[in-house]
Amino acid sequence: MTKNPAKRPNPAATRGSAKEDSSAPAAVVPPPAEARPSSPVWRSTSALPLRPASAWHADHDTVTARIPLLGPRPEAGAFDPKAYVGEAVPFAVTAFREGHDLIGVHVRLTSPAGEESLHRLEALKDGFDTWRTEVVLLEQGDWTFRFEAFADDFATWQHAADLKIAAGVDAPLMREMGARLLERAAAETDRPDAERAGLRTVAKRLRDAALPDDTALRIVRDRALAEEFRLRPLTSLVTVGDELTLNVERTVAGNAAWYELFPRSEGATRREDGSISSGTFRTAIGRLDGVAGMGFQVVYLPPIHPIGRINRKGRNNTLEAQPGDPGSPYAIGAREGGHDAIHPELGTLEDFRAFVDAARERGLEVALDLALQAAPDHPWVTEHPEWFTTLPDGTIAYAENPPKKYQDIYPLNFDLDPAGIYAEMLRVVRHWVAQGVKIFRVDNPHTKPLQFWEWLIATVNAEDPDVVFLAEAFTRPAVMQALARVGFQQSYTYFTWRNTKPELVEFLTSLSQDTADFMRPNLFVNTHDILTEYLQFGGRPAYRIRAAIAATAAPTYGVYAGYELYENVARPGSEENIDNEKYEYKLRDWDAAEASGNSLAPFLRRLNAIRAAHPALQQLRNFRAHWSDDDAILVYSKHLDAALSPTGRADTIIVVVNVDPHSVRQTMVHLDTRVWGVEPGNAFEVEDLITGARWSWTDHNFVRLDAFTEPVHILHVKETK
Amino acid sequence: MTKNPAKRPNPAATRGSAKEDSSAPAAVVPPPAEARPSSPVWRSTSALPLRPASAWHADHDTVTARIPLLGPRPEAGAFDPKAYVGEAVPFAVTAFREGHDLIGVHVRLTSPAGEESLHRLEALKDGFDTWRTEVVLLEQGDWTFRFEAFADDFATWQHAADLKIAAGVDAPLMREMGARLLERAAAETDRPDAERAGLRTVAKRLRDAALPDDTALRIVRDRALAEEFRLRPLTSLVTVGDELTLNVERTVAGNAAWYELFPRSEGATRREDGSISSGTFRTAIGRLDGVAGMGFQVVYLPPIHPIGRINRKGRNNTLEAQPGDPGSPYAIGAREGGHDAIHPELGTLEDFRAFVDAARERGLEVALDLALQAAPDHPWVTEHPEWFTTLPDGTIAYAENPPKKYQDIYPLNFDLDPAGIYAEMLRVVRHWVAQGVKIFRVDNPHTKPLQFWEWLIATVNAEDPDVVFLAEAFTRPAVMQALARVGFQQSYTYFTWRNTKPELVEFLTSLSQDTADFMRPNLFVNTHDILTEYLQFGGRPAYRIRAAIAATAAPTYGVYAGYELYENVARPGSEENIDNEKYEYKLRDWDAAEASGNSLAPFLRRLNAIRAAHPALQQLRNFRAHWSDDDAILVYSKHLDAALSPTGRADTIIVVVNVDPHSVRQTMVHLDTRVWGVEPGNAFEVEDLITGARWSWTDHNFVRLDAFTEPVHILHVKETK
Repeated sequence: MTKNPAKRPNPAATRGSAKEDSSAPAAVVPPPAEARPSSPVWRSTSALPLRPASAWHADHDTVTARIPLLGPRPEAGAFDPKAYVGEAVPFAVTAFREGHDLIGVHVRLTSPAGEESLHRLEALKDGFDTWRTEVVLLEQGDWTFRFEAFADDFATWQHAADLKIAAGVDAPLMREMGARLLERAAAETDRPDAERAGLRTVAKRLRDAALPDDTALRIVRDRALAEEFRLRPLTSLVTVGDELTLNVERTVAGNAAWYELFPRSEGATRREDGSISSGTFRTAIGRLDGVAGMGFQVVYLPPIHPIGRINRKGRNNTLEAQPGDPGSPYAIGAREGGHDAIHPELGTLEDFRAFVDAARERGLEVALDLALQAAPDHPWVTEHPEWFTTLPDGTIAYAENPPKKYQDIYPLNFDLDPAGIYAEMLRVVRHWVAQGVKIFRVDNPHTKPLQFWEWLIATVNAEDPDVVFLAEAFTRPAVMQALARVGFQQSYTYFTWRNTKPELVEFLTSLSQDTADFMRPNLFVNTHDILTEYLQFGGRPAYRIRAAIAATAAPTYGVYAGYELYENVARPGSEENIDNEKYEYKLRDWDAAEASGNSLAPFLRRLNAIRAAHPALQQLRNFRAHWSDDDAILVYSKHLDAALSPTGRADTIIVVVNVDPHSVRQTMVHLDTRVWGVEPGNAFEVEDLITGARWSWTDHNFVRLDAFTEPVHILHVKETK
Repeated sequence: MTKNPAKRPNPAATRGSAKEDSSAPAAVVPPPAEARPSSPVWRSTSALPLRPASAWHADHDTVTARIPLLGPRPEAGAFDPKAYVGEAVPFAVTAFREGHDLIGVHVRLTSPAGEESLHRLEALKDGFDTWRTEVVLLEQGDWTFRFEAFADDFATWQHAADLKIAAGVDAPLMREMGARLLERAAAETDRPDAERAGLRTVAKRLRDAALPDDTALRIVRDRALAEEFRLRPLTSLVTVGDELTLNVERTVAGNAAWYELFPRSEGATRREDGSISSGTFRTAIGRLDGVAGMGFQVVYLPPIHPIGRINRKGRNNTLEAQPGDPGSPYAIGAREGGHDAIHPELGTLEDFRAFVDAARERGLEVALDLALQAAPDHPWVTEHPEWFTTLPDGTIAYAENPPKKYQDIYPLNFDLDPAGIYAEMLRVVRHWVAQGVKIFRVDNPHTKPLQFWEWLIATVNAEDPDVVFLAEAFTRPAVMQALARVGFQQSYTYFTWRNTKPELVEFLTSLSQDTADFMRPNLFVNTHDILTEYLQFGGRPAYRIRAAIAATAAPTYGVYAGYELYENVARPGSEENIDNEKYEYKLRDWDAAEASGNSLAPFLRRLNAIRAAHPALQQLRNFRAHWSDDDAILVYSKHLDAALSPTGRADTIIVVVNVDPHSVRQTMVHLDTRVWGVEPGNAFEVEDLITGARWSWTDHNFVRLDAFTEPVHILHVKETK
């Protein structure tokens, strides 16, 4: 595969263009001999030798700088933008100057440990004066970045001299101007000595009246000379933008495969009388090999605390629990304790720790649920009645959505004793962090004050920046985005309800481009609350389709236990599983299902293996939709440049999915192959990572996807020689 | 015409909805007796009695306030947003709180003279938590505005009590909660005494066990009670946003019809030898009656300074002027003087003043051109050679776009002596301001540093806030928008090149919605530099179509002399008039053209009369595109609410244009009549202000527009009884 010239100028690859004499270099500047700058804390397509920036100082007190630097991205607002360790982060800014003279733009990064580096932005020439580069950040913590723009005096001269000498206009003048520029550069003491000497020699040649103009023109067009000035531009009017901060969090904040399970179901057994004995943390350890073996990295548990007995819900959300009904784990708190306690049926704190350790040994991290609400018998209710709304009749207000009431739950009223409630919630989180839990899936954060989350997450992360919070807020976009901005590391999204091709193109493009500076999606395919009509009525192909998209379109996705068993029967009229695990134990025989060929586990295992092997799939912002002629064939690519990849090799995946689970579709797909550096029309080899099939593809390709056999191609673009 | 309920809640109009007992009011609160607040410095649909805001103070140091107030608009960035005196300004903010409790949002305005007022925002219920109102600002200067959000305790109770009492759930509890709320309100000393007594009475009735629940429900649903709490809400958790500034400029900054003329052509006469004697300011006064009579408000003159003789351009931009060629007025400066001098052929400074006075007497304001560049014989060149780029060969650099050169012009190099150049440019502007010129059309501002314009405009406006600058920058969007943000009061746009229906819908929607907080378009239909192919080849209908759109789609538009004579012959291969007035005198007989029926002047006169009579057309942000089934029939409306209109009556204009100048088109147009308060399906009367025809219209109407007779309907919606 050829390198992407738009992303990584490669003098060797572009030598010999039509305008250029392709014989020996005309100039005598040695080609940049030193290795490109590199670092253990970043990977870059555009790193430059580090030089200080000396800003031009205006005589006039204006907001506008000499060269405007507008709309810096990652987007800074009231909160710092976010990235994760290993993420390829686009640094972009709108920059321009008056008139025709050329400018250049750099971004200066400083790592949390203080390592400074300089990277050159490319003009996108998109009509909007956007400059952009990408850098992979490998150190956790607050990075600072600032953009620097400058008049690119060499490039301005080169552009004019090229046109004018070729046109026979002002050749002696342009040669003299060039000689002066090169002498000015040669006087800069931070250029290598050999280069400085070379520049002086070239200046002399440009001034040499015996040198024909067409030879001078070869110097003007010399690629090595241009590359030298790209690495160390000759600058004036240097303008330095504001210093901005980018909060780089640990990798799992943005890149992991999640699996949700109810520990009480894992190892639960039916007694002879038909009743069920609960699974425990000890028995649930038995499921961890299965989860880890499928390639997941996070195992998420719904609340593990004592469950209220007052107004306990029965099976299928009935108002009265029957004897033996375990109740909803979201009705937290009973005489055995509240948010810092373990449900006795699950075991002890030691058992929980054993579970966490067993998970860790298998490469799994445990995520807990943080559901800040109380069952009527939660100890808070008696110890802190001031945290709840007491009605004029002396009762405590249930959760309600008038006229509906949720009588097994009391919501906290954060305005009655903010200081007390804030402190208690922090205590609860600290308690679990102390048990080794660093990931919290937060239940319904949009029903608590936004202000509280800002405070809690900032306070926890100041003590331990490894703690990650996932927002389960299925609500209005402004609220979901605000939760992400104030601190949540991850967000559930509307992914489960985006099932058609146009919906998915718009949705995934928006997630990866518009909001990625602050909001990271976790694409759960199902949850214990969500069984969409697409899954209810799409049959097994639907499960395969949704898993493939979730696992490849974004670097974080999740599956709730039972998905691999195609559990697709809903409680009538609802979008939840019938006999929902929230209200009862579920007995599942994972091995038998797989042995009989009735499990999606092998496919999930394959998807996670593909994710692990392909760094392009561990990125969010590189999602690019491509065109197909069929209204159900979704096509997208994920590309990571060689310079940005941990393997040092470019990685490109093309996903083609038939999102209609009831049909066989065939169509043409049309790819913008320049995204991975292949000129339109050129052939390249692809391998289907699901089936192992290999094809030669171009920018226009025929596909046939049979939902009933294999609705998905996950194609790896093989490197060309 | 009915009022728009979405914009102005009208208890009387909405009384008797299905949910409500329509007999006498259930509550005994007196209807708000006092007049709605009003003021000479604003008009509002939503003004409230002024009350102080007592902000809730968080215990925790967070960026997020108790009730988030995000994305306030008018949009505040590095520069304050802008409006003009008489503009209906949308004030909007994204606000929400956790859970289901209801909130309210106010905007508190303070006029430049210190008058404070309070206006209630409406929840748009757009899914994006947007709250919005509109206020017309009538005082020039810096207004401040800040949003205030609060828990609307009455509305929350009313919503729950309505649902629960009707459902027979918790009725005594809801009644007691209501009684307590009303007593809390009655304790507020800034409510009228009669209201406070009434609230206490209602509280007693709610508590009266003898009062049946369905009567209590009538109290809950009582409109007068709700209106009282709309005017003076019962608040808690009050959150106050940042104080922001809105720069309200004088009306002409945003609302005027412009006419461009070359004074040297007005009164120019052909001598017996065929040569032409220049018009003068004195002779040009003779044209002012014609311009004023057409209804224009601004007369704009290209540069009036001495014109360079060195490298003077000849007719049709030829490189060598012939004897008698007057040269381009943009090649400014000769031995007679520079930017502060008057071209001797035009007369003296006294003559210019006489012209300005004569214009003023006719209701016309004079705008001058500000073209900051020098002919080679400009006095600056000898007095301040340090302001120009001197090349290594000792010559001064011409303006160029390599390899093209513009040899009649030297550009200033602002980086060589910024202090000197800045001071001189300020001196030039002050000179003309002292002559009574308060409007400057700035030539090519994008070829000078953005920073300079920020400084110049701020400095001039600090001395005289009436001075208006129009940016003639036909360049990239980022640059055009940046010029507007840093201070330009108006901007030329790409209007001349937006001629198809889809282009115009997108373009005019964007101008009126996306950028209106800082950029105001001046929709010139032609200029001395621009004669588009649409006008070249569209015949007389094209002139009519473009003038009608420009005059009605935005409050500021312009015409360059000759448009009314349908001058449509271009220099071959160019988008400029042949025999361009920039390089020669133009002799035109305005009266003869009109007498023979070959002038568009009567139509322009009609358009300007319609603009003057219809305040809706004096607004920018009320442009709304509507649908038609034909790809060339453009439909849009401009509506101004009665409460916002200087007449006290609502004003609604519907414009329907056939933008294909070569055809007769007939189609259906589909209107969102709710924009002007008519429910879909209801009929309303319209009068065509061009032809006087009257029709009864609904939301779906047949139109037939013949480009060759009358391609435009400008319909006024007549008020219904």
